[in-house]
Amino acid sequence: MAEKPTLLVLGSDPPPRLGRLTGRVRVEYADDRTLASLLPTADALLIWDFHSRALRGAWPGEGPRPRWVHTASAGVDHLMCPELAASDTLVTNARGVFDQPIAEYVAALVLALAKDLPRTLELQGAREWRHRESRRVAGTRACVVGSGPIGRAIERTLGALGITTALVGRTARDGVHGPGELDRLMARADWVVSAAPLTEETSGMFDARRLALMQPSAYFVNVGRGQLVVEDALVRALKDRWIAGAALDVFAHEPLGPDSPLWEVPGLIVSPHMSGDTVGWRDELGTQFVELYELWEAGEPLPNLVDKRRGYVPGP
Amino acid sequence: MAEKPTLLVLGSDPPPRLGRLTGRVRVEYADDRTLASLLPTADALLIWDFHSRALRGAWPGEGPRPRWVHTASAGVDHLMCPELAASDTLVTNARGVFDQPIAEYVAALVLALAKDLPRTLELQGAREWRHRESRRVAGTRACVVGSGPIGRAIERTLGALGITTALVGRTARDGVHGPGELDRLMARADWVVSAAPLTEETSGMFDARRLALMQPSAYFVNVGRGQLVVEDALVRALKDRWIAGAALDVFAHEPLGPDSPLWEVPGLIVSPHMSGDTVGWRDELGTQFVELYELWEAGEPLPNLVDKRRGYVPGP
Repeated sequence: MAEKPTLLVLGSDPPPRLGRLTGRVRVEYADDRTLASLLPTADALLIWDFHSRALRGAWPGEGPRPRWVHTASAGVDHLMCPELAASDTLVTNARGVFDQPIAEYVAALVLALAKDLPRTLELQGAREWRHRESRRVAGTRACVVGSGPIGRAIERTLGALGITTALVGRTARDGVHGPGELDRLMARADWVVSAAPLTEETSGMFDARRLALMQPSAYFVNVGRGQLVVEDALVRALKDRWIAGAALDVFAHEPLGPDSPLWEVPGLIVSPHMSGDTVGWRDELGTQFVELYELWEAGEPLPNLVDKRRGYVPGP
Repeated sequence: MAEKPTLLVLGSDPPPRLGRLTGRVRVEYADDRTLASLLPTADALLIWDFHSRALRGAWPGEGPRPRWVHTASAGVDHLMCPELAASDTLVTNARGVFDQPIAEYVAALVLALAKDLPRTLELQGAREWRHRESRRVAGTRACVVGSGPIGRAIERTLGALGITTALVGRTARDGVHGPGELDRLMARADWVVSAAPLTEETSGMFDARRLALMQPSAYFVNVGRGQLVVEDALVRALKDRWIAGAALDVFAHEPLGPDSPLWEVPGLIVSPHMSGDTVGWRDELGTQFVELYELWEAGEPLPNLVDKRRGYVPGP
């Protein structure tokens, strides 16, 4: 009888649903400190603490290593490194779990900005009745950058609110604009939504030049990765009124420290990387991992397979 | 050549778009103080200041009076009185102008509550990074009270977000539940939305008994009229956690004074009766009035005709 495979879990909280694998797998836990020494003993690695960037430093150049790495996140930027990309190890992600929650979160931000809700709450705190006109979202235009399942869910949800939505992806295809059209689409959008994976090509793509293309009445929303945005440029765009407002759920450095100037930029909503995390999300991530594990155990092809050179799961 | 009709405008700001009627109508202005004395001289009355309740006291019992009253609002509770109801004067309202804006506003509140946005803004003010799980709205249930065009627009918009929405109206009909089903629908709703006209039958309908039927995880939203809700009962429901939260855009007494206890009820969002008022709304109201005026002038039947006994425009 073959030895049970070893599943290494990076993270301190045990993932839910792993009980279904009892007797078929040996589960061990690693933290950022112990990861490098435990990796050679693992057949599979589950990155449960998706805030950890430890794998990038710990991946063994040669010798024994996991044949499969799964991350309980949509983005894979926190784990990809040239050695992992060059290896024959499979990498999968949590594609699908976050799509609808993130799309709803974007809709919540867009509507809150259109209806001036942050100001309403401020005035409520001051016990001040001040009627204002707000905006209709139906008939406005959005430009959503990122054409994977999250971007497409955002497109559907904004579209359901009557917002004409253009998707921008790495390559032009049916229903998706290529990067060459981004400047033109940003310039006419009322809402620019960043939902792209973080790769060498997308890092810093929302810089001062691009933000300056936007209409002064337009808003910028980032639910992708903090590094997609040049934060200093966004602060300037808000302070100098290049744009009307913004909402960031992700940041170059997370968690945002109490001294960060971003907390108090006028017209900016700051939220703590929570857009996809609706009640039950950890259960869903655990269930998804167990389903993938059973395919891997059976030698079946894995869905959600990351293209390690590109840094995301290529779309249909 | 016949004398030009006299149009009396209740309100101090001249309505936009009236210029289109130049030469065909004599326009005079009244305020709350002068209304009673000017009414007998008017052929038509435009209630442009829809906050005024002066007509209820000023309507002439007999003798000369306007043959048509139009209010630049959806609700007519501020102008209806038994004498006006008994007269042969036509009453029209601004049906149609507010439907989509109010539906978007309700969606904004529902999403903001689901995504815990008020707390996010509080934590931002305190420079505190605190990740929380939030709710998905897709798959939840709403009960919308009010089956006119506003209620139906809310049903469509919440439905587009994946929320299963039941409409409750004065009479059961295709796609609309009757009042006898309200208790059952409120008890299973995640969102109860009040968008009914204020009439004798609807006044105080959201009382302690009904609020106590709601799930502790559910939210209450009022964009109809303040008097639909027993405000003390709602405060108790929030303080004693019968329900998870609420948002009020309308109040029994408006504007809400700085001493109102409602400003600081935990879990309550207070906004200043602005749900329908999107940029351009005054122009839309002016355009709509001019269109109605031209029909009236030509002796054509008027749309948006209020059933004065019921207190609203009966639906199709």
